[in-house]
Amino acid sequence: MQVGMVGLGKMGGNMAARLRDKGHEVVGYARHPEGRDVASLAELVEHLEPPRVLWLMLPSGDPTADTIHELTSLLGSGDLVVEGGNTHYVDDRQRADNLREYGIGYVDAGVSGGVWGRENGYGIMVGGAAEDVARARPLFEALTPDTGGGYVHAGAVGAGHFVKMVHNGIEYGMMQAFAEGYELMAASDVVDDVPGTFASWREGTVVRSWLLDLLVRALDDDPDLSELRGYAEDSGEGRWTVGAAVDHAVPAPVITAALYARFASRQPDSPAMKVIAALRNQFGGHAVAKAESGQSSDS
Amino acid sequence: MQVGMVGLGKMGGNMAARLRDKGHEVVGYARHPEGRDVASLAELVEHLEPPRVLWLMLPSGDPTADTIHELTSLLGSGDLVVEGGNTHYVDDRQRADNLREYGIGYVDAGVSGGVWGRENGYGIMVGGAAEDVARARPLFEALTPDTGGGYVHAGAVGAGHFVKMVHNGIEYGMMQAFAEGYELMAASDVVDDVPGTFASWREGTVVRSWLLDLLVRALDDDPDLSELRGYAEDSGEGRWTVGAAVDHAVPAPVITAALYARFASRQPDSPAMKVIAALRNQFGGHAVAKAESGQSSDS
Amino acid sequence: MQVGMVGLGKMGGNMAARLRDKGHEVVGYARHPEGRDVASLAELVEHLEPPRVLWLMLPSGDPTADTIHELTSLLGSGDLVVEGGNTHYVDDRQRADNLREYGIGYVDAGVSGGVWGRENGYGIMVGGAAEDVARARPLFEALTPDTGGGYVHAGAVGAGHFVKMVHNGIEYGMMQAFAEGYELMAASDVVDDVPGTFASWREGTVVRSWLLDLLVRALDDDPDLSELRGYAEDSGEGRWTVGAAVDHAVPAPVITAALYARFASRQPDSPAMKVIAALRNQFGGHAVAKAESGQSSDS
Amino acid sequence: MQVGMVGLGKMGGNMAARLRDKGHEVVGYARHPEGRDVASLAELVEHLEPPRVLWLMLPSGDPTADTIHELTSLLGSGDLVVEGGNTHYVDDRQRADNLREYGIGYVDAGVSGGVWGRENGYGIMVGGAAEDVARARPLFEALTPDTGGGYVHAGAVGAGHFVKMVHNGIEYGMMQAFAEGYELMAASDVVDDVPGTFASWREGTVVRSWLLDLLVRALDDDPDLSELRGYAEDSGEGRWTVGAAVDHAVPAPVITAALYARFASRQPDSPAMKVIAALRNQFGGHAVAKAESGQSSDS
Repeated sequence: MQVGMVGLGKMGGNMAARLRDKGHEVVGYARHPEGRDVASLAELVEHLEPPRVLWLMLPSGDPTADTIHELTSLLGSGDLVVEGGNTHYVDDRQRADNLREYGIGYVDAGVSGGVWGRENGYGIMVGGAAEDVARARPLFEALTPDTGGGYVHAGAVGAGHFVKMVHNGIEYGMMQAFAEGYELMAASDVVDDVPGTFASWREGTVVRSWLLDLLVRALDDDPDLSELRGYAEDSGEGRWTVGAAVDHAVPAPVITAALYARFASRQPDSPAMKVIAALRNQFGGHAVAKAESGQSSDS
Repeated sequence: MQVGMVGLGKMGGNMAARLRDKGHEVVGYARHPEGRDVASLAELVEHLEPPRVLWLMLPSGDPTADTIHELTSLLGSGDLVVEGGNTHYVDDRQRADNLREYGIGYVDAGVSGGVWGRENGYGIMVGGAAEDVARARPLFEALTPDTGGGYVHAGAVGAGHFVKMVHNGIEYGMMQAFAEGYELMAASDVVDDVPGTFASWREGTVVRSWLLDLLVRALDDDPDLSELRGYAEDSGEGRWTVGAAVDHAVPAPVITAALYARFASRQPDSPAMKVIAALRNQFGGHAVAKAESGQSSDS
Repeated sequence: MQVGMVGLGKMGGNMAARLRDKGHEVVGYARHPEGRDVASLAELVEHLEPPRVLWLMLPSGDPTADTIHELTSLLGSGDLVVEGGNTHYVDDRQRADNLREYGIGYVDAGVSGGVWGRENGYGIMVGGAAEDVARARPLFEALTPDTGGGYVHAGAVGAGHFVKMVHNGIEYGMMQAFAEGYELMAASDVVDDVPGTFASWREGTVVRSWLLDLLVRALDDDPDLSELRGYAEDSGEGRWTVGAAVDHAVPAPVITAALYARFASRQPDSPAMKVIAALRNQFGGHAVAKAESGQSSDS
Repeated sequence: MQVGMVGLGKMGGNMAARLRDKGHEVVGYARHPEGRDVASLAELVEHLEPPRVLWLMLPSGDPTADTIHELTSLLGSGDLVVEGGNTHYVDDRQRADNLREYGIGYVDAGVSGGVWGRENGYGIMVGGAAEDVARARPLFEALTPDTGGGYVHAGAVGAGHFVKMVHNGIEYGMMQAFAEGYELMAASDVVDDVPGTFASWREGTVVRSWLLDLLVRALDDDPDLSELRGYAEDSGEGRWTVGAAVDHAVPAPVITAALYARFASRQPDSPAMKVIAALRNQFGGHAVAKAESGQSSDS
């Protein structure tokens, strides 16, 4: 089928390629001229046969919001927007309501798989009305792995991004579990072969997983990770997961701890721990002591 | 090669069977008569050609300790004990030192894989002196998956059980990450198909893993887990992991949170939360109020 | 000075009484007739000399929002609204912007102290423009303790409720610290006198605090807290604190753990822990087993 | 009464002085000559009238253990040792059993209050047999605050150090709660006066406490804590508290999070977070990427 792909970055570009490999006609648009088929959103809409299907694969936040806003005046009744980026599920609902006034359908699609997806297929989690989802179904089939798995229609609009958000929250927790295990083995004086231990776990164990495979790859190239700093960004979906957990009164200590570990990794000097140092100095009766003085104590 | 297997339960029995399938001669002993080849430890030792190799697969704690104690008077110089149960790595060192005085070798082997191991092979993590490990190597090869993976000699005595302990700690964290994600999706009103979402994640996603496979199996049979109570035991290795983290000053918030969630799941009424309720009542100025009164508040 | 008090519940009623004790003229309005001086917001506004000062002490959310909305048409330029309830700091800003269009000033005041405040004085944390805060200053002086402490002008509009929110977040963490200590002593077999231990801590120790005083009072009446259930509500400010921490990338593991402990205390059966139970059953190779079967295990 | 004080450091020296102020006869011994009354343990024992009472106030671990070992040959039946340092409660029991064979009594006394204790009095938590505790009671009365509070006989041998350990665990949690609140207010752009906010909380609020008083003192001297590094040691009692919680299956998320925050504060570069960075790089398909490259992502 025909689809307009908006955004041709690492994700959008690879997805367009996979869709073409599977026989679909993709008209690509991006702000940067390289690799795009049309030079503007207006031109893209013009090129597509109504009723049109557009797949958005843009950075979350303003780029996606602005594009959807612009599309309300370009698209017409019966057209369909598939939002494949990382939109917050609450925003999905508002956008869908807004587009519906113009007769434009909206489907949210969470996409997992990174650069490996072009070859292996992507995990696709979809939210939207049954008829809208049905129209885009051939695209989902092309993008997911050839085995037929990797696809779910999770619920109404927002459900796709909600479960993608939860997927990423789980991912945070799993990554941190491996990270803590690594640090503990590295800190111990009894384990001589940390990379070999992880490698051995790839078969027969309970923790075997794609993340373990990736960790083994990383340790193959840099056995003690000496080329890396212990610094980790977060992309926002972990924060949203914690926010949703708090909103729903769901205890999520593991996912939250994983998020906070990332926050802490980015602090060259923790303000909170200055307070601890200050209080420990006070125990010693000093008005203020420098951290270097070594006078502080518990009491 | 010839090996004496002590303990023929769910783990030991299956391992003996797998070893025999691979052509090894296993003489099995267990307290319970069913399936054993000899009726006592003494008889077992008598049946084996020196230098003997014995594999212990017993409940951790006293059963293992008592058996090793008894073996010091039965075995002779040049014999080798492989401890395959869940011994704490600190105890391994003491046992090895003790056996060495009798000329008996000691290797600790952490074994992962549960009932699935007989067919798929087990993950085996070994600690001990190179020559001791080498002697038992054919057994490790038979027990691990046929692909050649699943084996590591992690370090000196204790290293095998140390990394198995860490493996289980990581497992706790991964399980809890999935558990929190499940609860959040189930609590949300936007996700209509929680089991289908987990099933879809088995391909193309970052969280694909053996634990996810197991969870999908569980949800296949009981889609809302209504047949289960939210109650989880812990087998001790999670506690040891937290203890080792504290000893080594390694922050392990995720593994610890997973352990504490299990502790809390077993409390019909939390004493700690009674304190919170009591304090909230005090804010309201009541000497003591019943929880039912609804008078308590933050302030 | 003259002030209109809107809301005469446990907090508003006591505050009105303390203001009158200190010589201020309070005109009180509440939905319920008992104790109110006027029968409607309109009548209240009529009774007050312009430029008027109104203090709102209502449940957060709709009651406060609706009242402020109604006041926009009743109040005039130069009047001032002090919002003393638990408004989210982000909403304060929007309300202040909205009222400013009508020439109405807005000050947010976080109030701490519960029912003890009428006698001891309240902690008051204020946000707003300097001139607005100055106008309400006599009220703040009357409400805070006679010692002259207990007051801060923390910043612009929203700052008062922000720091009150953080205050409550800290309170959550402190309460949970005492709660965990209580449970640990109660679980131990070495401590014979848990209430006496807490009582002894009221002097000479590092943990002496008002919360400790309250806990000692509670244990005086119910030494093993047997009259209470381990069930704790949360009033929303803990959630907001976690939300703000996540928004600002501030690791807040203690405050968050305290919040999650409350969430968990309200769950008769944890969905997350059902997942753990399900996975443990899977290790044993059972498709699904009942929790009672005792077959589950780590692996 | 007469007492031998072993250890005349910041704690022991001040306690000796307070005991003398209250009319007790203190014979002091320390390794360092300054301020001591006798030059050896043997001389100390000789100076004291049997039945003797000795108070040990030494660094925990070897110094205390070695001294108690030496005293077994110097003291006689009917003498009493009060161990006032930070011994692990499990070790108390072993020591008491050992001393009992020589007819020597043993009382463990947890002491709180730091350098402030000389003037204000100390919190004293005692474990031991009733008759042993009774003999040392005049010392406890002299050391605790003049108000008559600050003392508890918590249970048998070990109970004093157990509750002191828990006290310190609670202290960790409370400190971290304040620390997180500080960081959140400092990170926010709405709070202009963080020190003033803490100062205001000293009266009328729920969080008023001695720790808050100390924090206000610290902020008086260094309002943004710029003279301190965010680095915090731990003295071991927090670790023991977590260990005891794990042993007793008591969920202690707040105390543990406070401990882990200290661990993390001492790491210039977190090995665990290198793993997170490595995995994020892998998502991008790079074999290994430097942290600086900014190519890593969630997926």
